[in-house]
Amino acid sequence: MPQDPFAWTVTALETRRAAGLLRTVLPRAATCGLLDLAGNDYLGLTRHPEVTSAAAEAAMRWGAGASGSRLVTGSTALHARLEAELAEFCGFEAALVLSSGYAANLAAVTALTAHDGLIVSDAYNHASLIDGCRLSRAPTAVAAHADPESVAKALDGHRGTGPALAVTDSVFSVDGDAAPLTALAGVCRGAGAGLLVDDAHGLGVAGEGGRGAVHAAGLAGTPGTVATVTLSKSLGSQGGAVLGPAPVIAHLVNTARTFIFDTGLAPAAVGGALAALRLLRREPERAGHVRAAATALYERLRAAGLEATRPDAAVVSVRAPSPEAAVRWAADCRAAGVRVGCFRPPSVPDGISRLRLTARGDLTVNALAKAAGTVIATAPAAR
Amino acid sequence: MPQDPFAWTVTALETRRAAGLLRTVLPRAATCGLLDLAGNDYLGLTRHPEVTSAAAEAAMRWGAGASGSRLVTGSTALHARLEAELAEFCGFEAALVLSSGYAANLAAVTALTAHDGLIVSDAYNHASLIDGCRLSRAPTAVAAHADPESVAKALDGHRGTGPALAVTDSVFSVDGDAAPLTALAGVCRGAGAGLLVDDAHGLGVAGEGGRGAVHAAGLAGTPGTVATVTLSKSLGSQGGAVLGPAPVIAHLVNTARTFIFDTGLAPAAVGGALAALRLLRREPERAGHVRAAATALYERLRAAGLEATRPDAAVVSVRAPSPEAAVRWAADCRAAGVRVGCFRPPSVPDGISRLRLTARGDLTVNALAKAAGTVIATAPAAR
Repeated sequence: MPQDPFAWTVTALETRRAAGLLRTVLPRAATCGLLDLAGNDYLGLTRHPEVTSAAAEAAMRWGAGASGSRLVTGSTALHARLEAELAEFCGFEAALVLSSGYAANLAAVTALTAHDGLIVSDAYNHASLIDGCRLSRAPTAVAAHADPESVAKALDGHRGTGPALAVTDSVFSVDGDAAPLTALAGVCRGAGAGLLVDDAHGLGVAGEGGRGAVHAAGLAGTPGTVATVTLSKSLGSQGGAVLGPAPVIAHLVNTARTFIFDTGLAPAAVGGALAALRLLRREPERAGHVRAAATALYERLRAAGLEATRPDAAVVSVRAPSPEAAVRWAADCRAAGVRVGCFRPPSVPDGISRLRLTARGDLTVNALAKAAGTVIATAPAAR
Repeated sequence: MPQDPFAWTVTALETRRAAGLLRTVLPRAATCGLLDLAGNDYLGLTRHPEVTSAAAEAAMRWGAGASGSRLVTGSTALHARLEAELAEFCGFEAALVLSSGYAANLAAVTALTAHDGLIVSDAYNHASLIDGCRLSRAPTAVAAHADPESVAKALDGHRGTGPALAVTDSVFSVDGDAAPLTALAGVCRGAGAGLLVDDAHGLGVAGEGGRGAVHAAGLAGTPGTVATVTLSKSLGSQGGAVLGPAPVIAHLVNTARTFIFDTGLAPAAVGGALAALRLLRREPERAGHVRAAATALYERLRAAGLEATRPDAAVVSVRAPSPEAAVRWAADCRAAGVRVGCFRPPSVPDGISRLRLTARGDLTVNALAKAAGTVIATAPAAR
């Protein structure tokens, strides 16, 4: 009998299990009764009747899928509508919708760099930005986390004749801390470099009425700034988008492989995101609610002596002493009716395990109290 | 005033325009009256009421988005249902759904290779497989197109101690020709290498009842074979999946970055794909209809002297003398009421421009005759 060429995956899984790092998929029910502080539905719009109805109507009217690449049959007037309104809301000249935030980041990083250029990437950037750097033909310098001086130094060392691009999350996924966007933009301006900001965790939460961290920093629509956003967090749907000057977006249409060789985003996701965006415009106070909820959560955890990070947007993280302790802590929260995120290596840039809590704009005072109380009562130190 | 760091994109666009290679996004209306031979909706299920209703119901019941990564809050019982039924239908032990076929290919290639391994990749593979090779830490050897001997030779040269993986499309996107899967599997078995097949254009079209080209070759469920499929072509929705032995799928859950760091596929897309799959099971003759339509189209074009490729699935391609001629030809078809795909550099592996026609299982005899007649009447040679 011939050897099984994938037998090594069994060994790899056993090693992972022994290290307490095995991950499994746990499907949830449509309604599960848990208080959710793990998802990224920051505005609580994923289940909002206006948003789900718009998604359903889009599927009925436009079809269950886009039927092809955006360049062939996959661009509908609904996609164009979302792109126009998203660009206008975020303060950019143009937008391009892709099937995920991951695809948007791969598209932006690869299309805006060249072999004779340079990428300077924050050490804590999201996996999709890192993969974009790996796919790009440009050399990549990794800058210290949230450190404009480190970026300046790296840009200063650019000896090629191609474009230089600094790449950063606006709000970092794991700890919820903000990038120093104003300082970074200044450094980039000085060096003639472009700035690409992934505003996935900023849109809907940061800035005036949730216009995002890039808008809040006064960088939206400036010639040197390109942003990416997701439609799957504050906008409660699926997909991603790149925002920037019209020629940059047109260049992506012509060169970004994850745009050209991918099926267009499904109409239901486009319709859902568009409805969520319009809802946010109508009720801009939703963004402030998320930030207030995150701050309240943080303050309670801190008051109880937990090592929580001060939130710059919706995410609060709390350190755990070990991966095993983090898993147990999350399980104890779950048993007490609260779902929290559990981040451990290799999904964390610094190797530190933690619980990740996401505030939502629709959390009630009671729900917030329950969430904080549960995390505190089940904390490893409190045993 | 500081220099615009993205000014080079304007120049790049001008160069592209001058070369006749500028692409623009052309949004379509919900109903446009054109006869569509450009999309990948092979079974005509994207607008099928059962499929659109299921997508709409899923959005209403489960939400407009999955709300988080599949490992956090983004796995619903609906995802699990689709994975189970898809694996069973295609003849594999397990399946994993991702947000696009692109993401599925990146996941499979990167997770199943290692720095001390080897990838052997067909020269005409889809962009997403190529990007998977680029993201992988394994060295990649490019094998001649559809050439098992070339693959054998490359595998023979593997000097590392890590896993070897041959990677191929089952049906190639541009010309619609089939890979020699049986011979490739033999070569891989002999070399102890795994075989990864992208069955995006095979599912729903090739094999018994549309179970795909991998199933048709008797490779489904064999220890050495992993397949990827899309939910956005025959299944009329959005998303992708990896199919394989359970430990391989569990390994992807633990290591594939486009799975771990991406929001789960939106419920509407999951529900739509599941309904389409069930419809295909109930009406297995749909697969045969697509193949018959493609063959009929091919024969008419050939009889008229056009350089059409014999279809192994749903895709028929017809050579054009130049990129400009291809664009004009497609525009003339469109003016006559028929939408066809127009592929030109750099989206074609051999630099040859062509029209790409996709047969659909729901095309009537009259529609087929109109499509063929239009392509023939507008052909550059016939002017």
